[in-house]
Amino acid sequence: MYNAKAYSAASATSPLASDMIARRDPTEHDVQIEILFCGICHSDLHSVRNEWSDFMSTTYPIVPGHEIVGRVTQVGSAVTQFKSGDLVGVGCMVESDGVCPLCKAGLEQFCQSVIFTYNSPDKYLGGVTYGGYSDSIVVDQRFVLRVPPNLNLAGVAPLLCAGITTYSPLRHWGVTEGKKVGVIGLGGLGHMGVKLAHAMGAHVVVFTTSPDKTEDALRLGADEVVVSRNADEMQKHAGSFDFILDTVSAKHDINAYLNLLGLDGNITLVGAPEKPLDVAAFSLIMARRSLSGSSIGGIPETQEMLDFCGEHNITADVEVIPIQKVNEAYERLLKSDVKYRFVIDMASLKSE
Amino acid sequence: MYNAKAYSAASATSPLASDMIARRDPTEHDVQIEILFCGICHSDLHSVRNEWSDFMSTTYPIVPGHEIVGRVTQVGSAVTQFKSGDLVGVGCMVESDGVCPLCKAGLEQFCQSVIFTYNSPDKYLGGVTYGGYSDSIVVDQRFVLRVPPNLNLAGVAPLLCAGITTYSPLRHWGVTEGKKVGVIGLGGLGHMGVKLAHAMGAHVVVFTTSPDKTEDALRLGADEVVVSRNADEMQKHAGSFDFILDTVSAKHDINAYLNLLGLDGNITLVGAPEKPLDVAAFSLIMARRSLSGSSIGGIPETQEMLDFCGEHNITADVEVIPIQKVNEAYERLLKSDVKYRFVIDMASLKSE
Repeated sequence: MYNAKAYSAASATSPLASDMIARRDPTEHDVQIEILFCGICHSDLHSVRNEWSDFMSTTYPIVPGHEIVGRVTQVGSAVTQFKSGDLVGVGCMVESDGVCPLCKAGLEQFCQSVIFTYNSPDKYLGGVTYGGYSDSIVVDQRFVLRVPPNLNLAGVAPLLCAGITTYSPLRHWGVTEGKKVGVIGLGGLGHMGVKLAHAMGAHVVVFTTSPDKTEDALRLGADEVVVSRNADEMQKHAGSFDFILDTVSAKHDINAYLNLLGLDGNITLVGAPEKPLDVAAFSLIMARRSLSGSSIGGIPETQEMLDFCGEHNITADVEVIPIQKVNEAYERLLKSDVKYRFVIDMASLKSE
Repeated sequence: MYNAKAYSAASATSPLASDMIARRDPTEHDVQIEILFCGICHSDLHSVRNEWSDFMSTTYPIVPGHEIVGRVTQVGSAVTQFKSGDLVGVGCMVESDGVCPLCKAGLEQFCQSVIFTYNSPDKYLGGVTYGGYSDSIVVDQRFVLRVPPNLNLAGVAPLLCAGITTYSPLRHWGVTEGKKVGVIGLGGLGHMGVKLAHAMGAHVVVFTTSPDKTEDALRLGADEVVVSRNADEMQKHAGSFDFILDTVSAKHDINAYLNLLGLDGNITLVGAPEKPLDVAAFSLIMARRSLSGSSIGGIPETQEMLDFCGEHNITADVEVIPIQKVNEAYERLLKSDVKYRFVIDMASLKSE
């Protein structure tokens, strides 16, 4: 066991503040990582403030962060895939049972025994797992990803959650060259969806409530931008989409988008509005449409996504901040005042 | 043009009553059919009473009926697949453009130019098409189905709508031996869903609000029956279903059923509740579930379904009535007082 520097919150109403936490000494299967960058995901904020208590209540203190990139500092004796000095990533998960059919299918995120990177039971040290707002982490090699060497490291961090969350449904629902793909919302998730769908060869249409995002959407790879409040503009696309990625986490009129799908078209939700969506049966029955959800992605697919991003030179658009600005960043996140993801430069933790 | 006997409604508040209607003389592509039986679908009632006016408003007089079986009395010179004396069926559609990608894919129900069996524009005689509550009908050979000779004819009639409406999503979502399949609601559609899923080799679980339907559900082919109001019984099945067919046309708690789906599980709506369903995003995101809709089925699949029913000796459970009891049957339908489909014996029309 050793001490690591971290930022933690002591309660749902406390700011994040400097703290010391215990990390386990690497076991034979473990990889010890010096964390270089950690993205700020909206889930971090929800968890810190215990806003998902119905689903998974928060144990305090909490150290959030599951968009981790860093450099390997030590490996256990049974670790074959990584060595000291390697650039690696860790996403939302750090353990699963490894033997169930879901794990064997590479869908660890749905394993009954999945352990998330923070706020999950820690079987080694007791208490809960601590995430990436820290200078160091120890993770089983099965949950460590290789980072392509050509990519900007700060921009890689958000790939570990926002990247895989959008990549996985795009792949699952068969997005490829020639498909017409919509992306609803242009935030941390949405901007990754646009970049990835574009790189997959799709014709990408961004739906936004803010006309002033048009230029940026086109720069990110969109072929068209539709202002969703404009019913005429929406109607022009009726029945024409193969797939729509819905990244909006506030309640919205999902039927307006379902009606834009063609035969066997699908909308996948990756944002999770607190209140239920009103779904009209006729919106689904016509054209055999479907509405579904998706949750991050498994480890093999996360590696595939990172490799894909390496090949296509894709990273997130980030604003790098020192950890001392994390509370301010949370307030700005609530106002969507970021293009498009905050990433903490963990070097700033050294001065704490 | 010739006259046919029929039952029509003159307005949304009029009862169905004896009438004479015009039918076209068969063109070279047409099949003239003496109607022997016609099922009563809930859509008939909705259309007669103009309850779907938002979707497709009713033109009066209306002659409903799209679960038609009969005997060929005459064929046009270009008709090669049918001859006088053949037993045939006609379902919900009588025309489509035949050239669009949807038609070419055998999905005529989604063709922009589909003409339904009743209450659609009649390009031959003007006005609207008249359905199967009649002693005769003339239909383009492309929309005429072969009826397997071993089946009870009255029981075949509902296959043309209730049968294909349930068969198509079961096939589309890959129901086969070893799959766990739920059927919500045990009415006209639900009882067909149970018979068909059972014949496909699935483990079939019926969800019902009425415990007194248990015995009948088992007789129809269910392996288990769950009373949906019993939360404990529901919880036992959490995360275990591959597919659930939802035949309920009243608003209901869809999340309770979504949570019963396993990985990539799907619920397909074939009933169309008037009010939107409240769908919680988390219900979909967990296990990558999906909610979809399905509308009848195309002509090739309808023939496949009839052949499947022939092989497995499947017909609907019906209560055969004379046409003079049709208004009474509508009232009983509203109370779900039928096991499980009314079918009109069209011989009763001869006395009008």
